[in-house]
Amino acid sequence: MITIYGMRASGNCYKLQLLLDQLGRDYRWIDVDSAHGATRTPEYLAMNPNGKVPLLELEDGRRLAESDAILCYLAEGTAFWPDDPWLRAQTLQWLFFEQYSHEPCIAVARFIRGWLPAGHARQGELPALLERGKGVLGVMEQHLAGREWFVGGRYGLADIALYAYTHCAGDGGFDLSPYPGILAWLARVRTQPGHTPMQH
Amino acid sequence: MITIYGMRASGNCYKLQLLLDQLGRDYRWIDVDSAHGATRTPEYLAMNPNGKVPLLELEDGRRLAESDAILCYLAEGTAFWPDDPWLRAQTLQWLFFEQYSHEPCIAVARFIRGWLPAGHARQGELPALLERGKGVLGVMEQHLAGREWFVGGRYGLADIALYAYTHCAGDGGFDLSPYPGILAWLARVRTQPGHTPMQH
Repeated sequence: MITIYGMRASGNCYKLQLLLDQLGRDYRWIDVDSAHGATRTPEYLAMNPNGKVPLLELEDGRRLAESDAILCYLAEGTAFWPDDPWLRAQTLQWLFFEQYSHEPCIAVARFIRGWLPAGHARQGELPALLERGKGVLGVMEQHLAGREWFVGGRYGLADIALYAYTHCAGDGGFDLSPYPGILAWLARVRTQPGHTPMQH
Repeated sequence: MITIYGMRASGNCYKLQLLLDQLGRDYRWIDVDSAHGATRTPEYLAMNPNGKVPLLELEDGRRLAESDAILCYLAEGTAFWPDDPWLRAQTLQWLFFEQYSHEPCIAVARFIRGWLPAGHARQGELPALLERGKGVLGVMEQHLAGREWFVGGRYGLADIALYAYTHCAGDGGFDLSPYPGILAWLARVRTQPGHTPMQH
């Protein structure tokens, strides 16, 4: 059986839970509290030198890091990873958008507000993160105009990856009410068979 | 013929030049000066709502953003995109590492030093970026111990993506001399057939 090392309240880890539960696949989950140093121990760094969760471990001991790379690997041979090269390319475009443009403001704002004390110096980053995040949410809202899903007219990896931190953007101080397309899309994601909520 | 919208001195754009030249593929290159607002015009935002370079445009007008998604798409059906799912997964792991951990410190330090004036407020970010960048370079150095290439024992997309900003890390103030494995790998990349230097 495969093993996921992850933190339940991390959107990057929750993505894998979403996909695995929707694939109906058995897996072992080992909690690693990355917010409190558990990814910086010598033991963990020996498994993932970049010191991050999630981490996938196969039955034979091989390991894979980076949440969106793990999503693609787990989706191989399923309907979640389309055969068509252009659909795969668009999926990857949104996965890289998620990691490069979305996560560094939407998820980081949530981390600063939810995990750091009120007087922490990083609280000063919030105004800039909220401003950048509005731009990111605007890109998503524009794309969802007239579309039900991010790629190819069906629920897929791009929706899973973007749902993970968008559905809890309010934790970071983002108001989603100006984005009706995003709100309707979030509701559609929640109705997908096998959808499981994030555990906080 | 395909078109790349890009800025020659951007590592994210240079990646595509590296791959396309090594594939011997014809393409049109349209310069877009993202450092001076050319990606924020209404015309450019109509092509890429996220306002970034590079952008791929196919003969039929379809467009794809995100440098590493474009690399994967262009490499489809070539030796640069392996058939083996585990090799592909590892390639994606390094591409996401590049965009999430590497580019945001190595490339951003280069941008601050090379494009912003000496008194700019963002110069204050440099010490933290240099510190984070050392960690990133350390992860690469550790991986290259006993390896010639990042994935599967052969030159591939992970090497191209990571070369783009690592070879010019000195521009951002990084000293690569403590990383002999990285220096030897950079030299190997430069000897690959069809390798072209970055245009500054």
